Amino acid sequence: MSKKTILLDHGSGGLASQELIGSLFLKYLDNPILNDLEDSAILQNEPGQLAFTTDSYVVDPIFFPGGDIGKLAVHGTINDLAMRGAVPKYLSLGLILEEGLELEELEQVIASIAEAAKSAGVPIVTGDTKVVPKGKGDKIFINTSGVGFVQDGVHISSKNAQTGDKIILSGTMGDHGITIMTRRAGISMEGDLKSDTMPLHTLVEKMVSALGTDLRTLRDPTRGGVATSLNEIASNSGLAIEISEEALPIRPQVRAACEILGLDPLYLANEGKCLAVVSAAKAEEALELMRSTDEGREAVIIGTMTSNKAGRVTINTPVGGARVVTPLHGEPLPRIC
Amino acid sequence: MSKKTILLDHGSGGLASQELIGSLFLKYLDNPILNDLEDSAILQNEPGQLAFTTDSYVVDPIFFPGGDIGKLAVHGTINDLAMRGAVPKYLSLGLILEEGLELEELEQVIASIAEAAKSAGVPIVTGDTKVVPKGKGDKIFINTSGVGFVQDGVHISSKNAQTGDKIILSGTMGDHGITIMTRRAGISMEGDLKSDTMPLHTLVEKMVSALGTDLRTLRDPTRGGVATSLNEIASNSGLAIEISEEALPIRPQVRAACEILGLDPLYLANEGKCLAVVSAAKAEEALELMRSTDEGREAVIIGTMTSNKAGRVTINTPVGGARVVTPLHGEPLPRIC
Repeated sequence: MSKKTILLDHGSGGLASQELIGSLFLKYLDNPILNDLEDSAILQNEPGQLAFTTDSYVVDPIFFPGGDIGKLAVHGTINDLAMRGAVPKYLSLGLILEEGLELEELEQVIASIAEAAKSAGVPIVTGDTKVVPKGKGDKIFINTSGVGFVQDGVHISSKNAQTGDKIILSGTMGDHGITIMTRRAGISMEGDLKSDTMPLHTLVEKMVSALGTDLRTLRDPTRGGVATSLNEIASNSGLAIEISEEALPIRPQVRAACEILGLDPLYLANEGKCLAVVSAAKAEEALELMRSTDEGREAVIIGTMTSNKAGRVTINTPVGGARVVTPLHGEPLPRIC
Repeated sequence: MSKKTILLDHGSGGLASQELIGSLFLKYLDNPILNDLEDSAILQNEPGQLAFTTDSYVVDPIFFPGGDIGKLAVHGTINDLAMRGAVPKYLSLGLILEEGLELEELEQVIASIAEAAKSAGVPIVTGDTKVVPKGKGDKIFINTSGVGFVQDGVHISSKNAQTGDKIILSGTMGDHGITIMTRRAGISMEGDLKSDTMPLHTLVEKMVSALGTDLRTLRDPTRGGVATSLNEIASNSGLAIEISEEALPIRPQVRAACEILGLDPLYLANEGKCLAVVSAAKAEEALELMRSTDEGREAVIIGTMTSNKAGRVTINTPVGGARVVTPLHGEPLPRIC
């Protein structure tokens, strides 16, 4: 017997769509707001400013060590909200399915989305599903948008960094990117490479609460990696950044895989890490706080904001040299998230 | 000279992505919030409940008489917010581009999005762009999510309909669906078939303000058409619906094209129409109000909520017969929006 697959009819808005919603989506994503199936979700408002973000996920393969496209989508959007100091509250889920996708695979992704959303405490409250003909998509593309609230007095922005501030990276670099790249290249590594996909909002809430305005900037170095995020922070703050090559935390198996594939971990995507710019006075306190959490237990101070040439990021090598770190360019690393 | 096209590198998050953002997206979508290019947009909160919705658009072709995929995405999400009585305030824009898409086509879509958002007064405040390899997508898929606010005392829901309430359709049926279908079938019709894509939030604001709780339900009959939306209203309210075949407003050229293609306009998508359920007492006032607007000038009362079999929709024919109107099933009408 052939496996059940997604048909064009599942996207037509009629009975087949309703069956998919009832038998699959609501089975896993069940909550009173989503169950209403109205044109939009009506949600409780909360004090503070509103944070709003969107991200599409087209990662290939859709299942990989440490996660899958669904988990990645939930974590990614939660993290984009957290990077502005917002408390994430609600997620939307937009699916673009390719005709012929096995229902079993879809179910696995939806179950993973449900688990990630539940465990993070941020429900999916509204959704949409479209189906495109075979060969006009690639299994499943996901858009998650998210809404959260920023409490009064919290103001996290890449513009806030000041000269002398320290830059903390919450853990090792490149785990997600190298996992996807080795998987796609068909390379099997010794040791366990796996994606670092993880929600960071709980860590961020602790930091916001403990550090106040000494916490200037948060960025999650996803596509383009730590190098690209540092360049954005330097550019937006009008300052320079100096980082120490020795300080950069990289797992040995990630370093080995990077050497085989000729990739620089500075440019590889991370999906469960953040860069935090913190005042020099509070940097050690921030580091200790981060290290006391699961998400940040391998956090390190990797550099300093300086008043050198605005927008420039330099890396100091162990032998006393220095080189400029540009944003990602050249070889593309497609469909990493 | 060959035309400039989208490359995989445009989705990698590095320099090429930034160039695309700077030279194309911000050129058209320019506003202080989007220009920040942070991980999420920080927005002013407003009194009332929050409305949140998402929709992906995969319409084929991406340009069609009366609109394009960009305009459709902006209007569709605005309308989903409006259907709950919310005032739409902010939109997100998630693009999934196929490698090889002509930059000229992308620019045309972005310009159209910008124009639609500006003219509706609802800015794009946050966005994301991914690129998939040629043959793994189809030119451009768009996700628009949206946020709005529902004023205290406003409660529009498909559950609210009461026996005796009247059902008003804000204009003609099937214009969008038949335009896409004839275009795809390569059929050229006499007369001008064109999509009805249109934002309805201004019309809805007027109705909410004039009718109060006598305005029970709003639905925009997109995928699945008027037939499917009526079934949803009947099912969610636990009542029955009777509509009059004679009353249904259909343009002659839409009727003619439907006959050629063997399609029933009751099941064709509309992208600038709403169904409104209004108390019998206020139905005439609502109709007059709608007819006094551009969006609703062809509004008609098409039926009544009754206490017959819960969830059943019947249509009364001019010769005195009646038949049950089911939700869309069978032949799919894919990629209509």
